[in-house]
Amino acid sequence: MSGAHWLFPHHDGSETYVPEPHARLGGTVDVLLRVPHGSDVTSAWVRVINDGEPELVAASLDRRTARDTWLRARLPVVNPVVSYRWLLDGGPYGYQWLNGSGLQQHDVPDAADFRISVFEPPPSWATDTMYQIFPDRFARAVERSAPAWAVPADWDDPVIGEGPDTPRQFYGGDLDGVAAHLDHLASLGVGTIYLTPFFPAESNHRYNASTFNEVDPLLGGDEAMARLSAAARERGMHLMGDLTTNHCGNTHEWFQAGLADPDSAEAGFFFYTEHPHAYDAWWGMPEMPIFDHRSAELRRRLYDGPDSVVARWLGPQALAAWRIDVANMTGIHGDINLSHLVATTIRKTMASVTSENFLQAESNHDASRDLLGDGYQGTMNYAAFTRPLWQWLLPPQEQPYRHTKYPVLPNLPGGPVVAAMRAVSGVTPWQATLHAMNLIGSHDTHRIASLLGDARLVDVAFGMLAAYPGVPMIYAGDELGLEAMGPEYARIPMPWAHPERWNTHRLESTRALFQARAASEALRRGGLRWLWVGDDVLVFLREAPGETVLVQAARASYKPVRLPVGVVGTHLTGLAGTPDVEAGADGTVALPADGPAFGLWRLAAVE
Amino acid sequence: MSGAHWLFPHHDGSETYVPEPHARLGGTVDVLLRVPHGSDVTSAWVRVINDGEPELVAASLDRRTARDTWLRARLPVVNPVVSYRWLLDGGPYGYQWLNGSGLQQHDVPDAADFRISVFEPPPSWATDTMYQIFPDRFARAVERSAPAWAVPADWDDPVIGEGPDTPRQFYGGDLDGVAAHLDHLASLGVGTIYLTPFFPAESNHRYNASTFNEVDPLLGGDEAMARLSAAARERGMHLMGDLTTNHCGNTHEWFQAGLADPDSAEAGFFFYTEHPHAYDAWWGMPEMPIFDHRSAELRRRLYDGPDSVVARWLGPQALAAWRIDVANMTGIHGDINLSHLVATTIRKTMASVTSENFLQAESNHDASRDLLGDGYQGTMNYAAFTRPLWQWLLPPQEQPYRHTKYPVLPNLPGGPVVAAMRAVSGVTPWQATLHAMNLIGSHDTHRIASLLGDARLVDVAFGMLAAYPGVPMIYAGDELGLEAMGPEYARIPMPWAHPERWNTHRLESTRALFQARAASEALRRGGLRWLWVGDDVLVFLREAPGETVLVQAARASYKPVRLPVGVVGTHLTGLAGTPDVEAGADGTVALPADGPAFGLWRLAAVE
Repeated sequence: MSGAHWLFPHHDGSETYVPEPHARLGGTVDVLLRVPHGSDVTSAWVRVINDGEPELVAASLDRRTARDTWLRARLPVVNPVVSYRWLLDGGPYGYQWLNGSGLQQHDVPDAADFRISVFEPPPSWATDTMYQIFPDRFARAVERSAPAWAVPADWDDPVIGEGPDTPRQFYGGDLDGVAAHLDHLASLGVGTIYLTPFFPAESNHRYNASTFNEVDPLLGGDEAMARLSAAARERGMHLMGDLTTNHCGNTHEWFQAGLADPDSAEAGFFFYTEHPHAYDAWWGMPEMPIFDHRSAELRRRLYDGPDSVVARWLGPQALAAWRIDVANMTGIHGDINLSHLVATTIRKTMASVTSENFLQAESNHDASRDLLGDGYQGTMNYAAFTRPLWQWLLPPQEQPYRHTKYPVLPNLPGGPVVAAMRAVSGVTPWQATLHAMNLIGSHDTHRIASLLGDARLVDVAFGMLAAYPGVPMIYAGDELGLEAMGPEYARIPMPWAHPERWNTHRLESTRALFQARAASEALRRGGLRWLWVGDDVLVFLREAPGETVLVQAARASYKPVRLPVGVVGTHLTGLAGTPDVEAGADGTVALPADGPAFGLWRLAAVE
Repeated sequence: MSGAHWLFPHHDGSETYVPEPHARLGGTVDVLLRVPHGSDVTSAWVRVINDGEPELVAASLDRRTARDTWLRARLPVVNPVVSYRWLLDGGPYGYQWLNGSGLQQHDVPDAADFRISVFEPPPSWATDTMYQIFPDRFARAVERSAPAWAVPADWDDPVIGEGPDTPRQFYGGDLDGVAAHLDHLASLGVGTIYLTPFFPAESNHRYNASTFNEVDPLLGGDEAMARLSAAARERGMHLMGDLTTNHCGNTHEWFQAGLADPDSAEAGFFFYTEHPHAYDAWWGMPEMPIFDHRSAELRRRLYDGPDSVVARWLGPQALAAWRIDVANMTGIHGDINLSHLVATTIRKTMASVTSENFLQAESNHDASRDLLGDGYQGTMNYAAFTRPLWQWLLPPQEQPYRHTKYPVLPNLPGGPVVAAMRAVSGVTPWQATLHAMNLIGSHDTHRIASLLGDARLVDVAFGMLAAYPGVPMIYAGDELGLEAMGPEYARIPMPWAHPERWNTHRLESTRALFQARAASEALRRGGLRWLWVGDDVLVFLREAPGETVLVQAARASYKPVRLPVGVVGTHLTGLAGTPDVEAGADGTVALPADGPAFGLWRLAAVE
């Protein structure tokens, strides 16, 4: 995995390699292979699965350019998901496969085959940078009395990070508070505002909803949502809500109706082991009873059809996207597994309501089974982005590692880190990788500034967030350099009134990075071609038709890598504050080898 | 992948590591990890997926033995399929995973997780050696006139290997002919007789059935089947039939009824694009119209319930097992994918009819999606056994390889060969690997003797067939050393009357191998632990409680491997004609390093 990759043949699902990715059943789709000059590959076939049977399609010469030979194969679209991989000569054995995880020198199973689907892809704005807001902690426009269940806090009070009062500590942030800070979001190049739950609930996190019928009056209610939505749309921004389809609160009106009457429809929405005392709940927490998706009435109310919760909150008064909480568990319970039905029904409902919307899922591990395009369109990318990146940037850890609720992760060199990224993203169709929600921190993690310590390592984390394929999500406050260990401790109110607490380097560099991303088709939608993987440095290209961006992330100073001008050209134009780089007299480009550091360059166009 | 593996921690799904593999929903299952003394692993956890969510279960010390430390973890059986892998310290990064494909030095997707299911496993006889009979070419007990469609042949005539007469050439083998040769099968240690289709059809292969209601009268009809079944059972043998659930012949009574009446139920069994002229057929061949499994009436007639074809031919009058032809395609057509419904319904029907039976599938690539235990229980193992083994044993091939209907496969060294075996079998639950139909040749391949040329390489192929986990299938005639290239040419009538054409070395060594296998619990059901992988030699253990067998396959002479006596003991007892081996004075065992050669030894018992 380590070493120079620029001679390797390459394919991914981006437009450079799949010029028309919106396949039609019964039609064909062309796929292209880049074979850099100097590669020993001379012939290629595509193995494609048609109606369950593998077949080989020969590729033929498309064109030769200054740097590459391009091969093209035309695949029949026999099934809704076209599953394929390349069979190549060359390499150590004259026989190798290229699949979503890279070159393979032996036969492999089909899980990492490339996949193109006939399903409608997300709208173009779906790749906009996201900004995550935990409403209670973002900004307060209106002073309101705390509800009975709450422990009221003043905005500058310290966070109660553990114990029974943690979910009850109430700062009183609201949606008009969000609307008041859209300038700040715009300055970060943000396009999508991800709001954690806004339905009424007896907690500050609101993942235990009491109803899905109204926006919490403590947040300003439906009218505040309409105001925020209008203000966001005026700036070309979109709102994403956060829905618990796995469970609700035990205060929820449906759960209460089910408790009151064992013969009610609502009693069938839950798993009673003994009505009304005993029922199945998320992680055994009685305040979060889980839903039984076998109930058609539950599905109708929650996500199936135009009267459902999913449908009603989409549109100009509110949301353009949903993030489904605990999607990896939703619909799975014992011998029941309706997860595919849940995901595809939500998607179908969304598609029928508005022409442009976007469906994200929460998962913290391999979610590939859910990401074929007919259900969830992306997932929180802890598995293929966050965790490998953390493992690379973390300081060396104590061994043996402790594996508790928040496992201690080892520090790993670049080789296994990139191997993990490629292995896990390889089982995910490109469209899902492109729409994966990448993150370096969230309301469920430590603050990245505290996790990594060294601000230069945080620069690298933010750089990777902006430059790696997917939808970057900035957790509100990380752009100000907020610090805390422990996910609950990290839910810090935004220090709007205390600019002296802001890390201005972090704020300015984050603005520069994500503004650059917003302006770059390559960073927003380009493919991913690895050029160099070392212990301490990762170098890759993001390639779109008409624009190629070179990305360098170094976790430490390293022995300079010399990139041939035949690969990257003679002049590299720095982006987001990165200085330009010129080729040396020896026909190579040496990137700055000091670290930790992050750099972004646009390559000069060539044919 | 290459090199010494004996210090690696090990787990697989065999009884040594999963003492009680028949999990019960809501119960627990214990899993064990072997940590050889000298390994740097000190701690282990199991990551198990419960209701879609990964959780870590700590393993604790089970016992220390002379050679190993054993760690044990108790997993909850939350779902019908328990998906898990081990998280270990040790290795180059102090952090590694052990999954079905082996040790992984970086995060990986879930496809190769170990899996244990609550589904009823196949009966113990299912691991008996199989013998494949193509009825027209095996033995003729009764002289019958050839039917109108046929080109009659005398038993000693040469095979017509290509052209329109290939499927019509009719030798007239029959089921009483099979019954007459059960002594021969018994001498080979065979327990299951796999008959390719026996329903009437207008071809010698009978994969284009005209009915599923009777045994072809040309084979002796239902009475001959009853006689064969009785004779087989008397010897403790079982019969496996071969059913085309993907398609039938265009002469089939259902297809004819559908043609005659577009409003008939039978017309709904097929995909008419324009009735009656145009319909979808297997690989576009009009003589094989494919079935539309959306028809509940088709399912009822073919495999759903006690009146179905699947049910009616099971039982004392006929079969104990089915092999489903083209299972990888069955139920998949365009945007229809009912493959899971087909497989699980067949299985359910079989389970309801007789207490002991066995369901095999045809597939030529990764079939893992179908092998979780609730449908097909094994599959033809071209992907994880046949093809890698061929690639290892084939003489060096011309490059670049031609990729036609029968692709030319490259010769590969042991490293990538074993990596392919482990990668593909890794995505398959152990129970499915144990019940996979391993083969070195079939009615769809060249004769192994001709493919490999050198008889010593054929020895190695047969040895691996007998010793690798799975159900070995001997293609009738391979044990006599029959030779032919081209699958159709290779369908040679058995030369019963010409013992001078038999390869007696092949016959005697095949008898010795499979008799040894029949007598060995380790070879029939044991786990698989790799000890050494070199370019030219593969060494592994088959481990069962109470018996361990060491297997050595060498495709050429090689530099001797010295196995520590702490791993294999001081005295190795040869099986199936292999000479015994003793440890040397240096505390290691050197296996014979001449090749091509194959060896099998039973290790002395130790605690």
